[in-house]
Amino acid sequence: MSRTWTAALVIIGDEILSGRTQDKNVGQIARWLNLQGIRLSEVRVVPDIEARIVEAVNELRARNDYLFTTGGIGPTHDDITVDAIAVALGVPVVEHPEARAMLERYYARIGGELTPARLRMARVPQGADLIDNPVSGAPGIKVENIFIMAGIPHITAGMLEGLTGTLEGGRPLVSVTVGAHAPESEVADILIAVQKAHEGTAIGSYPFFKEGRVGSNFVIRAEEEEVASACAEELAEKLRGAGYAPTLGGL
Amino acid sequence: MSRTWTAALVIIGDEILSGRTQDKNVGQIARWLNLQGIRLSEVRVVPDIEARIVEAVNELRARNDYLFTTGGIGPTHDDITVDAIAVALGVPVVEHPEARAMLERYYARIGGELTPARLRMARVPQGADLIDNPVSGAPGIKVENIFIMAGIPHITAGMLEGLTGTLEGGRPLVSVTVGAHAPESEVADILIAVQKAHEGTAIGSYPFFKEGRVGSNFVIRAEEEEVASACAEELAEKLRGAGYAPTLGGL
Repeated sequence: MSRTWTAALVIIGDEILSGRTQDKNVGQIARWLNLQGIRLSEVRVVPDIEARIVEAVNELRARNDYLFTTGGIGPTHDDITVDAIAVALGVPVVEHPEARAMLERYYARIGGELTPARLRMARVPQGADLIDNPVSGAPGIKVENIFIMAGIPHITAGMLEGLTGTLEGGRPLVSVTVGAHAPESEVADILIAVQKAHEGTAIGSYPFFKEGRVGSNFVIRAEEEEVASACAEELAEKLRGAGYAPTLGGL
Repeated sequence: MSRTWTAALVIIGDEILSGRTQDKNVGQIARWLNLQGIRLSEVRVVPDIEARIVEAVNELRARNDYLFTTGGIGPTHDDITVDAIAVALGVPVVEHPEARAMLERYYARIGGELTPARLRMARVPQGADLIDNPVSGAPGIKVENIFIMAGIPHITAGMLEGLTGTLEGGRPLVSVTVGAHAPESEVADILIAVQKAHEGTAIGSYPFFKEGRVGSNFVIRAEEEEVASACAEELAEKLRGAGYAPTLGGL
């Protein structure tokens, strides 16, 4: 089996912890990572407090191939991500000339002034490269194995677009879903037996209640298409044997 | 100032980390905690792997008043939360007679059988109490300062309902929002000055782009209504002075 590449995500945001804002970045980053052959292995949401960001960043960058952060890179006083990551890495914060040039062009184009607050967005931990931001002026930042992204989901989506194919990864995880109007508790033994019989698979069970009927989607994940498919077929067969009418692709 | 009560949340779920499922529990638990006078101080999303759950639970229960978990308490092989938390606490897993009775009543009522898989949902770490589940048969679990909740958001909502008012907390955090069609980068200095002038407040800045116009909502949080209001009023006044037309309550 090939080596598994992993990433972690630190979400910096009082607004998520207060329940004010619904996070949308976990899902989009997770799905994007899957396509790069990298698995999202942990997410932490921490408040806008430097020590808490430093702790999470240092723990997670050490034990993953990549670390992503979202949030806290805007122009206001509560945007402290760059400073916190510089502290975590033990490097100073410097102005990145290319970032400054990007901001100058952006504000010239939209007819705004490059105020000191906006210039904050040209600050990076020393040694950093920029990640292109096709939506607004302020770039994302790459430093060591850390990718500093925006909090606003469609800006992060644009940054991910530009990073596609640039990170070394393994094989994308393949998933096949089998759905059935079976309560998961009725077929728990079947799931165990089928997963055991197919090495390298993991079967997740996700119950639902839709249109007045109870059912479950069983998601089979594996590194190889054939392994996942063979597992899905045996699961479907066993479910049919137990009196259900399974649907490949899920319900 | 009164003592600050905090809680952390561990989300147990491969389905969140794979990007398959959008979490809805952070927001609802955060908002519910705010009403109990408890602040959500950290969230971790970890995979369905015992050692990872144990690590997160032990780190976060030690440094918060309360720890909530969601996910992994169903009847299938991938539901390992109870076992992991028992390991974290160093206690055995036992069958809770009242939980068994609840499941018996539930399955008798809906005309199902209490299979061994379903009986798994009566297992608790030794010493645990139950949390009522008004939606489906399987109860939540309280053990020491840990609250083990369902992954399915409307079931967790039902469990929270039953816990309302039972946890000791401090003063609920009050928030007041001031909105303006001001780019946050234009008013960054005002935010710093106003926050400094009002001790005990924190101002969050949340930019938006709606109906073709750029603007920001500034959320002022404080423990006391009067403190938050006074801060909001000064902020509104300063924004008016800078040529904007702020709206109390936000945009």
